[in-house]
Amino acid sequence: MAATIKDIAQKTGLGLATISSYLNGGNLREKNREKIEQAIKELNFEVNETARGLKTNKTKTIGVVIPELNNVFCAEIIIEMEDILRQHGYATIICDCRTNKDIEKEAIDFLYRKRVDGIINMPVNVDGNHLKSFIKAKKPIILIDRKINGLDCDCVLVDNLTAVKDAIGILIKNGHSKIGIISGPEEIFTAQERLLGYRLALLEAGIVPEERFIAHGDYTIQGGMKCIEELIKKNPDMTAVFVSNYEMTMGTVIGINELGIKIPENISVIGFDNIEFARACKPKLAIVTQPTKKIGVNVAEIMLNRISGNPEDKKILKLQTGFLNGNSIQEVKLPSI
Amino acid sequence: MAATIKDIAQKTGLGLATISSYLNGGNLREKNREKIEQAIKELNFEVNETARGLKTNKTKTIGVVIPELNNVFCAEIIIEMEDILRQHGYATIICDCRTNKDIEKEAIDFLYRKRVDGIINMPVNVDGNHLKSFIKAKKPIILIDRKINGLDCDCVLVDNLTAVKDAIGILIKNGHSKIGIISGPEEIFTAQERLLGYRLALLEAGIVPEERFIAHGDYTIQGGMKCIEELIKKNPDMTAVFVSNYEMTMGTVIGINELGIKIPENISVIGFDNIEFARACKPKLAIVTQPTKKIGVNVAEIMLNRISGNPEDKKILKLQTGFLNGNSIQEVKLPSI
Repeated sequence: MAATIKDIAQKTGLGLATISSYLNGGNLREKNREKIEQAIKELNFEVNETARGLKTNKTKTIGVVIPELNNVFCAEIIIEMEDILRQHGYATIICDCRTNKDIEKEAIDFLYRKRVDGIINMPVNVDGNHLKSFIKAKKPIILIDRKINGLDCDCVLVDNLTAVKDAIGILIKNGHSKIGIISGPEEIFTAQERLLGYRLALLEAGIVPEERFIAHGDYTIQGGMKCIEELIKKNPDMTAVFVSNYEMTMGTVIGINELGIKIPENISVIGFDNIEFARACKPKLAIVTQPTKKIGVNVAEIMLNRISGNPEDKKILKLQTGFLNGNSIQEVKLPSI
Repeated sequence: MAATIKDIAQKTGLGLATISSYLNGGNLREKNREKIEQAIKELNFEVNETARGLKTNKTKTIGVVIPELNNVFCAEIIIEMEDILRQHGYATIICDCRTNKDIEKEAIDFLYRKRVDGIINMPVNVDGNHLKSFIKAKKPIILIDRKINGLDCDCVLVDNLTAVKDAIGILIKNGHSKIGIISGPEEIFTAQERLLGYRLALLEAGIVPEERFIAHGDYTIQGGMKCIEELIKKNPDMTAVFVSNYEMTMGTVIGINELGIKIPENISVIGFDNIEFARACKPKLAIVTQPTKKIGVNVAEIMLNRISGNPEDKKILKLQTGFLNGNSIQEVKLPSI
């Protein structure tokens, strides 16, 4: 016969309330925790999580909705989060919405019906209406990478503006002024911030940004290929390009290779996000790096904190990026006067 | 007050049994399905999935345990599976075990306690003991990519042996006989198959495989870098190398770049798995490609079939790989006699 919590009480000499508190994830003294875990092992006790979920109205599951699981930035954040959440007894249900607003809305509704205890979202929808059910139910919401204006929830972001401003600054220091940018979709928060960083860097250096140097990609490899081909075709005077995510960086390198032009002799390049890809490129690519591990850890910790009932003011974290130098930037020799 | 299934019955004119069948994922006539969905919308009816799970003993969740989520091969398979499973009302709980046998066992136990209806596993443990709880409970198990000897369950595999045999055959046709291989961990099923393909190709061409040309990596980028450096150092006469997964292919390209030697002039290379990476390489890499999308679709369909109670004999699917040509293979000119 299956062991019950009464058997655990008998074996440990602890009260039912203590054991119940343990099973529902409550805090208790280390010594008692150890005793209970030993008894659970010996008695081969199994928690019926479904029954528990009904009683506590908690399912100990967290929903995650992201645009693309095969986007390395998303995958690396999820790995960190999932690991920490699992260590605390939370299962992570992941939905990939393929950068589609309708699928994102469906996925959020689906997770709401699955009664997840909280939701983590790298949003594709920009108005926040897709999260209504969670807002109404007052369940914790954490946004990753992209803020939604007017939505009061925790956000873990990256300082995209400074990241891009600094990267463009490096190109300017190397004598470039005809600098292209492969930006993201116009309505995406990160894309706007990154583009703003680009414009600011140019303006501060006394260069007026020209629209012909700005391409809007869709954060995919194919998008990157298309953008770099357009930019090069349209701007024979362009000497450098900045690419604003990893997938489009890969697309840019493919496009440049297939056009038969050379980095950095014909064009200087700064990419985004993946150290290993940068090292595999020939020549080694200069890139902006994002703190994916740190993002994942922060998101998981904030979620655990919110679930435990902490009502403090919502946090907006902004993490710093890094810069990895490569051999993809060439100095522009100005004609002597 | 919240709507109940009686309200839906009244609104649609259908029997409670029909509505109950719909809510539990049963098959019903398209016309009835539409009626019910319309009523659910209008009444703002919400299913309490937790209560339902307790009654049906089904949670409508599927567990997935994989070695590395930031492994592109894993991520692409999951995207396909998750999409199909969600369309059928199943949530996918994903655990990344970081290629660690103990974490894998823990993750499987965790998902068992979460009462998932079935488990999908790309196994790191090779004896199958980690899946005991699911075997005992007679819940469906599907293995991806790697078979476990003696475990009676569905498997969706790739014909690794033929894939590698054919790739090595191409190198041999180009005059290579001193061919290195960066293989996977010795105890992994796919690694054994791929290595066997390598040995067979050589033997059929009358070349005796030499152990000095075989390196065992761990399917990571770092592992690929280490292996290529060792192979080149140990074998100055090696003219070609085959690399047996994507991450190690990236590591090999990084290693070769950082040693300052040239593909294909100094060494011919055939890699694995990622078309975009192959195109971003300079020169373009020849690679073996795997049918990730097809694997994902097959796994999801078999799982849905098993969950619906189909007891037919377990399936072992073996899917064919592809080959993408590049500019990374150079013909070896034999000295004229």
